[in-house]
Amino acid sequence: MNSPIASLLWRHLRVYQIFGANTEVGKTVFATLLSRAAKRRCQQETVTFLKPVSTGAVEEADERCKHLQRFAATTTRKTLFQYQLPLSPHLAAPASGQPVPSDHVLLARCHDFAAQCASEGPGWLFLETAGGVHSPAPSGTTQADMYMPLRAPTVLVADPRLGGISQTIAAFESLHIRGYDVVSVLLFRNAKYKNHTFLADYFTERHGLPVTSIAEPPGRLEDCQRDADAMDEYYASGHCEETAGQILHHLDSRHAHRIDSLHSLASKAHKHIWYPFTQHSLLDSKDITTVDSAHGDCFQTLAPSSDADRQPLLRSSFDGSASWWTQGLGHSNPNLTLAAAYAAGRYGHVLFAASAHAPALELAETLLDGMRNPRLNRVFYSDNGSTGTEVAAKMALRAARLRYGWPVDARLGMLALRGGYHGDTMGAMDMAEPSAFNEKVEWYEGKGYWFDYPSILCVNGAWTVTAPAGLTKDLGHPTSYHSLAAIFDLDRRESRGEHEGYEMYIRKVLSTLQRQGRTFGSLIIEPVVVGAGGMELVDPLFQRTLVNVVRQSPHLFDTRGGSPASPKDSHDWSGLPVIFDEVFTGLYRLGRFTSSSFLGVHPDISVHAKLLTGGLVPLCATLASEHIFDAFGTCDKTDALLHGHSYTAHPVGCQVAVESLREMQAMDARGAWDWAKAQGWRTPVLNETAGPDDLPWSVWPHSLVTYLSQQKATVKGAWALGSVLAIHLRDDAGTGYSSNAALTLREALRKGVEVGAARPWNVHSRVLGNVLYLMASQMTTETTIKQIERLLQESLA
Amino acid sequence: MNSPIASLLWRHLRVYQIFGANTEVGKTVFATLLSRAAKRRCQQETVTFLKPVSTGAVEEADERCKHLQRFAATTTRKTLFQYQLPLSPHLAAPASGQPVPSDHVLLARCHDFAAQCASEGPGWLFLETAGGVHSPAPSGTTQADMYMPLRAPTVLVADPRLGGISQTIAAFESLHIRGYDVVSVLLFRNAKYKNHTFLADYFTERHGLPVTSIAEPPGRLEDCQRDADAMDEYYASGHCEETAGQILHHLDSRHAHRIDSLHSLASKAHKHIWYPFTQHSLLDSKDITTVDSAHGDCFQTLAPSSDADRQPLLRSSFDGSASWWTQGLGHSNPNLTLAAAYAAGRYGHVLFAASAHAPALELAETLLDGMRNPRLNRVFYSDNGSTGTEVAAKMALRAARLRYGWPVDARLGMLALRGGYHGDTMGAMDMAEPSAFNEKVEWYEGKGYWFDYPSILCVNGAWTVTAPAGLTKDLGHPTSYHSLAAIFDLDRRESRGEHEGYEMYIRKVLSTLQRQGRTFGSLIIEPVVVGAGGMELVDPLFQRTLVNVVRQSPHLFDTRGGSPASPKDSHDWSGLPVIFDEVFTGLYRLGRFTSSSFLGVHPDISVHAKLLTGGLVPLCATLASEHIFDAFGTCDKTDALLHGHSYTAHPVGCQVAVESLREMQAMDARGAWDWAKAQGWRTPVLNETAGPDDLPWSVWPHSLVTYLSQQKATVKGAWALGSVLAIHLRDDAGTGYSSNAALTLREALRKGVEVGAARPWNVHSRVLGNVLYLMASQMTTETTIKQIERLLQESLA
Repeated sequence: MNSPIASLLWRHLRVYQIFGANTEVGKTVFATLLSRAAKRRCQQETVTFLKPVSTGAVEEADERCKHLQRFAATTTRKTLFQYQLPLSPHLAAPASGQPVPSDHVLLARCHDFAAQCASEGPGWLFLETAGGVHSPAPSGTTQADMYMPLRAPTVLVADPRLGGISQTIAAFESLHIRGYDVVSVLLFRNAKYKNHTFLADYFTERHGLPVTSIAEPPGRLEDCQRDADAMDEYYASGHCEETAGQILHHLDSRHAHRIDSLHSLASKAHKHIWYPFTQHSLLDSKDITTVDSAHGDCFQTLAPSSDADRQPLLRSSFDGSASWWTQGLGHSNPNLTLAAAYAAGRYGHVLFAASAHAPALELAETLLDGMRNPRLNRVFYSDNGSTGTEVAAKMALRAARLRYGWPVDARLGMLALRGGYHGDTMGAMDMAEPSAFNEKVEWYEGKGYWFDYPSILCVNGAWTVTAPAGLTKDLGHPTSYHSLAAIFDLDRRESRGEHEGYEMYIRKVLSTLQRQGRTFGSLIIEPVVVGAGGMELVDPLFQRTLVNVVRQSPHLFDTRGGSPASPKDSHDWSGLPVIFDEVFTGLYRLGRFTSSSFLGVHPDISVHAKLLTGGLVPLCATLASEHIFDAFGTCDKTDALLHGHSYTAHPVGCQVAVESLREMQAMDARGAWDWAKAQGWRTPVLNETAGPDDLPWSVWPHSLVTYLSQQKATVKGAWALGSVLAIHLRDDAGTGYSSNAALTLREALRKGVEVGAARPWNVHSRVLGNVLYLMASQMTTETTIKQIERLLQESLA
Repeated sequence: MNSPIASLLWRHLRVYQIFGANTEVGKTVFATLLSRAAKRRCQQETVTFLKPVSTGAVEEADERCKHLQRFAATTTRKTLFQYQLPLSPHLAAPASGQPVPSDHVLLARCHDFAAQCASEGPGWLFLETAGGVHSPAPSGTTQADMYMPLRAPTVLVADPRLGGISQTIAAFESLHIRGYDVVSVLLFRNAKYKNHTFLADYFTERHGLPVTSIAEPPGRLEDCQRDADAMDEYYASGHCEETAGQILHHLDSRHAHRIDSLHSLASKAHKHIWYPFTQHSLLDSKDITTVDSAHGDCFQTLAPSSDADRQPLLRSSFDGSASWWTQGLGHSNPNLTLAAAYAAGRYGHVLFAASAHAPALELAETLLDGMRNPRLNRVFYSDNGSTGTEVAAKMALRAARLRYGWPVDARLGMLALRGGYHGDTMGAMDMAEPSAFNEKVEWYEGKGYWFDYPSILCVNGAWTVTAPAGLTKDLGHPTSYHSLAAIFDLDRRESRGEHEGYEMYIRKVLSTLQRQGRTFGSLIIEPVVVGAGGMELVDPLFQRTLVNVVRQSPHLFDTRGGSPASPKDSHDWSGLPVIFDEVFTGLYRLGRFTSSSFLGVHPDISVHAKLLTGGLVPLCATLASEHIFDAFGTCDKTDALLHGHSYTAHPVGCQVAVESLREMQAMDARGAWDWAKAQGWRTPVLNETAGPDDLPWSVWPHSLVTYLSQQKATVKGAWALGSVLAIHLRDDAGTGYSSNAALTLREALRKGVEVGAARPWNVHSRVLGNVLYLMASQMTTETTIKQIERLLQESLA
């Protein structure tokens, strides 16, 4: 019952949702018209009306039902939840004494009913909503929000009365901004208000949306028989029959068109799209996932072998890479949509040169406050993580160059980690060591030294720190820990001297580099996790030690042997400016606002993107200290930081980011992830320097990590932190990038689960070499995690 | 009357707009309550109700007026447009026989009325709308769209009846997505439906918006006196007085807060924002323009010396750089907002790796169709022009390297134009010649050869082609032409042999470079206009010739002396892959879908951004030929094009781009710029090979260009094309980047115009060295252009 719900799409069942712009706009009459037209069109097809929730005395509901039965005799009408009180369902349902159905239960019942209809043969299913588009469902969620996952194309019955133009357009917009495809607007003609004339022009011009109007039915007559006769005459009139036939034809062809478009999307994309990071000669068009839409944690994807008439064409696919690490608040989150639309409606874009707008400032203040880093005071905006790390590099290199007095053409390198990855623009690529990702790129020229580092894995149930060859000898601390928390308790480990081996190693390397005459302008690291470079969990003690050693060692970077200026105060950089690339690791990815808090050291510059906008549009913020900023302040315009994109600080992105960050901060404050922390991450609390809230945790249960780490035949080890689960698979052949083990697991997840025939779902995951990772959003529920956990276990069994 | 309308903001006049979620929701009662509360609060302040449009018999309108006068005696009530018929204004106005006021006229009257109120002293002004939020105004524009420019904060009167929850939320959303600040929701309590309870929770939780409910007024009594007494009692009740007082206090403090926020925005931004391309030590916080909002072609900016109580705080500022060259369809265009919101509501974001979604494909097809370039078949998405040109370079360099057999570490340069500019990421910077923009950037390393080029200016009324020193000797064609059209008639000029001098020059340069052993991988140019590099109009014949010579000269690039493969067919690249960077020049900036059509040659790769999304969010598309694409297709994954951003092909951007491009194409098809073409650009038609539609034109009148070019004391020359006007000012001191002449003109435009005291406006413009340019959007009207023309003439006089 709890498995994800797919959108409603079957080839031979046309499903349409009927929303009203208001109450009493004639939904029953239009339903009758459509029903009769469908039967006229094909007597063999079934026509079903599903009213998921109905309130008011059964007799009243019956009356509507009787109307349909009388005038469209062979139509089936079904109610799933009936409440006696003639009030909105959010009042009637709790008053009924029955358990109030959750949105998920209600949608699941709708879905399964539709699946049942589809299994019975060709036909039509109309979903009737109650009241207006935003009238609340039993749970209190408004219908427009609740029904989003079903994404049935929509018929909007407009209001022909005074004020009806406004009601209709506003209702349309509330549906449209939730991704509903409104395909038809229907209304009665009212000769006085002529709403049909206005709305026909309006919707055709602005939305290419057809509006069909029909004569009003006769007024109700006292005498039942005469009333019925009059209605019969009305329904049977040439005007009504012809118009209803046209509407039905339109709905039928839109249905066919939607399916055709979905079926041709992949092959057309295969022909014209050039995909990022994709070897097209290895990509068949059938390998392309066709995405109809997405909601919450799931895509709605075209199901394979979906040609059978009775099989569902769409299935729910868990977005297991969080859409390349962007999703925080779930796909198609109405709050983010409204935030984006508000900024679009207030500003559009505003050039960000000597101008200020509220969203840019609010976001800057929110980021600076959230970082709790006394060094950071400036925010520079750009468009993505790659441009943001280039900006960070420009900042750091200038500051270092000026202090150490190097010439502008000095060959300045970055100190960084092996496998670190900072983006795809040339400057960002140059920060990464030579690898398969860049060595064939014509202008690539690696600029730096890349440290080997100790990494963490849960191996056969034990949390293990594995040091690279060059480091092993000096290590002098345990390689196995009782818990991840114990590894992350850096103060305790430092008090035991566990950092000393790292320190010696780092100093040795730096001294060697100095002797080689190499010049470095900055240290850049991804705190805690090396992401694109293989989803490696880095020993945070090593990263902290690296920062500390760099800061203590200006003498190791001063290649001119002069006397560089000393840091001005305790917030000034020392040694080298330190950049934290938190593009992947920051903003609650690992469970905290900033991943730097795991290290307990403050960078001079930090870079934030991906989750920044909660998963909607590109935006990046590079934060810097005032001391770094000051390095650019002279009387010469050309000493300025020469970077800037046309859409710098675009209000839409900034507003969405403000909304996202505030929501994630509020979730944090109200303990929204307490369920996750309780999944084995709080015990055993072995350390004394940290309270339970400071412990590392993940939405992926500790027991799952343990289980995975025990599958010794296929799994080398695993780790989880925040929303990330990384499974390092055995790769004994050393095939790395093309490891078969990971691909096999990915295929099993992709095949997914079939809960009966009607509610299949699967997991869309990404692989990095021999690592398969899964990434939840910050909204993913315990239920979803449990389902994926089962699927993982079955896939590996 | 036609000058831009500023938003309504005065310190001591609190202006609120009252929208109803529906008709008959009690707006008059709430108005009376607020009015009485205001008077109780301060007897000396005026309280005014402005109902811009009223329909129905005067007696009926009078009745509402009488209600206010009876129960809130000292309130003023004013109607601007009164129509007899009791119908929606869009029906009543045309039927009245009076001229139907345009939106601009109606808003201007509202603005001027508010200004009059503000001049009279402290008080309150409530703007009453008619019907629901989307009820049409006399012109047929719905009120929610029409009133946007006034941007008065809004009180929404909710509907307490059955269905009222839906009506209220939908109405709120239609306002919110247009950038209205709804600050208060008011409604009557209805014990049965309890909408006030639901809405209070809903709006507080989701939008932090207070909802205030108040007891319903007594039902109407037959006896007039008793009815009046009952209402008197109602209004005077402690509950009503207290609640109304609270609402008023809230409105008063929101007003003060808005003004405080605006006044502190620049200083806060000055403290925390790091602006792009800005020497902060030269930037005072008072130089920062505070942007409250933007609509159409104008920002609403905080006016200088806006501390006086009676002076307007905001003024309209024409966005003279089209917000760094992004605006196509105007700020806060509701169609773009809705397109963005639809995609956000349907998808959020979808990772673009082996997946397909409709907006990405539709945009790809729209671009490929629109280009009419038989070479182009592939679309690669990235986030901005800089990343898009890096992608283009990666494509071109690989294709060239493989064909010519160069090693991966060969030093490949770009052939390009002097002053060309392709972005701020390191790879894009490296394509530009060393200059003030990059020579202090630590990792910059210019990679290429940059051709000098002949440029076009209208000088003292004559269209002139000026060749650089190295070219002059070989030129052999006139330097002065009858018209810009004559210069752009390339076929005719070629038939006269005017390209031959260029050809000789280019061949000579290429041969010299070959002798120097230099290796080139691509030709990249900005067609027709070198933008950021100084707003130079390049002789298109030179660019066409450059492309042709490069294509004819593989032997000049083959540094290995081998036998590189020949082009496979007529659509394959030859010589070098040719990149057109149309980021600035394309997509109707210069009046045409693609600026390549001016040159009449087809690039192998072209890059599009800025106007791509009509001015809303960042997005870039790099288009490539199938032959370029094929160079990456091997069995090796690492031979793929290694580039990709997390938000690649984000659906919001793609959907907005589809909407923008289709609208601009539709404008083109329906002759939306015929008024501009008729401004002296069609005559004299001297050439024979081009029809009148093929002639270059601009929204800036030809006579303005001529006038500017004749201001010999200050102006060196000018040109206009499409939406761009560039004024090259005299810079005899050669101060270039800091030319005073341009700054003086910019200051004059910034000072702007005061039409009386009430409707000041100005022009926000950008300067590039000694060039001041103005850029219209694709929606800018003839009226606006004429106003700016006058302002320019006054500023230079």
